[in-house]
Amino acid sequence: MTKYKLTYFNFVALGEPIRFLLSYGGVDFEDNRIEWKDWPEIKPTTPLHQVPILQIDNEVLYQTIPICRYLGAKFNLTGADDFENYKLDNCVQTITDLRMKIEMVAWDKSSPQNFIDEKRAELLNKTIPFYLENLEKIAVKSGSGYLASSKFSWADLYFVPMIEYMNFMMKTNLLEEYENLKKVYENVMKIESIKNYVAKRPTQGN
Amino acid sequence: MTKYKLTYFNFVALGEPIRFLLSYGGVDFEDNRIEWKDWPEIKPTTPLHQVPILQIDNEVLYQTIPICRYLGAKFNLTGADDFENYKLDNCVQTITDLRMKIEMVAWDKSSPQNFIDEKRAELLNKTIPFYLENLEKIAVKSGSGYLASSKFSWADLYFVPMIEYMNFMMKTNLLEEYENLKKVYENVMKIESIKNYVAKRPTQGN
Ligand SMILES: N[C@@H](CCC(=O)N[C@@H](CS)C(=O)NCC(=O)O)C(=O)O
Ligand SMILES: N[C@@H](CCC(=O)N[C@@H](CS)C(=O)NCC(=O)O)C(=O)O
Repeated sequence: MTKYKLTYFNFVALGEPIRFLLSYGGVDFEDNRIEWKDWPEIKPTTPLHQVPILQIDNEVLYQTIPICRYLGAKFNLTGADDFENYKLDNCVQTITDLRMKIEMVAWDKSSPQNFIDEKRAELLNKTIPFYLENLEKIAVKSGSGYLASSKFSWADLYFVPMIEYMNFMMKTNLLEEYENLKKVYENVMKIESIKNYVAKRPTQGN
Repeated sequence: MTKYKLTYFNFVALGEPIRFLLSYGGVDFEDNRIEWKDWPEIKPTTPLHQVPILQIDNEVLYQTIPICRYLGAKFNLTGADDFENYKLDNCVQTITDLRMKIEMVAWDKSSPQNFIDEKRAELLNKTIPFYLENLEKIAVKSGSGYLASSKFSWADLYFVPMIEYMNFMMKTNLLEEYENLKKVYENVMKIESIKNYVAKRPTQGN
């Protein structure tokens, strides 16, 4: 039997879409959640000195989106054709762009507080609505209850934990006003395997 | 006949892998190179207020990597199987991570000069060799004269212009010491369609 071992910190962020995908795929994976204090020792053993890494038997996979796309292909969660696959990739990249914009403010420990407050306000009033409206329009167009394709896809399993992570960073529910994105979120959270994983995970959306 | 129109600034950066791919695919594309002075007018007409965008008939595609992967699929430049596709995606992401690290320093207009100099030195002595060694090892392993797969792929057409762009930002030839990456670069530049495009392009590696 193929052995899966995911190594990441004990929080959502980049590890969680992989955990969602592995849970959905029904594979029994080792969820290796490392502590900050152990990181200096583990860091140099990883290919880019970063996590997540996913070991599949003797292969070490890294880079979150490539891992997610690979698992998506494995578990039949790709689009119906090349153009639908493009649309999934496009959404995943747009979510990632937004996530990085939020991280730059949320994890900024060196700028003065008034600068950070200003940046936070800009995120809440401008950047986040702009990106989420883009995604909402795509979800409206798909009309499937899923993000960008005619059926459930790996992009949906990427989207939901990233929303959780961004909610955590922004301390608010970002989807409040986006009916179609909310629907995608709910549809994913309704999936039996995801529900089971979420019920027993050690971190709740952070 | 399908109409392709690429809109980007008149430089290499994110536009160039798309230009390489379209040139390789042998499609006649409109290479719409916009001037900075016209950007404020064009910006709000694009989906994320950014370029590149690629119009294919009536569809507007955006997000560089998703566009490149889509064109790669169209022009039969994908990997031999899902795992090879993962390896291509992985390299493309790693190149992108490095590119963004370099951009943060190269386009930093607000930090004091000594801070920028320090960051530049760190890039040259630490970050860039670390990332390029990672990619070099992958190229050694592939053994094909191409980046990560047993045959030529879209990741090679992504890699070469990104190296050009990073060379431009760092004002040096980053591949000097990486025999296998240099080989990939040369192999791509030898392709007839790429050679023809490069010979006539208005910008030379910047
Ligand atoms: N491009 C990588 C980024 C990975 C990354 O940023 N990992 C962070 C945690 S989210 C990390 O390992 N930080 C610890 C460190 O760099 O020492 C991916 O998409 O997987
Ligand atoms: N995630 C996007 C990023 C695109 C991007 O950063 N575009 C820059 C040029 S390289 C841009 O449009 N800058 C002008 C602006 O934002 O006003 C992609 O990969 O295509």
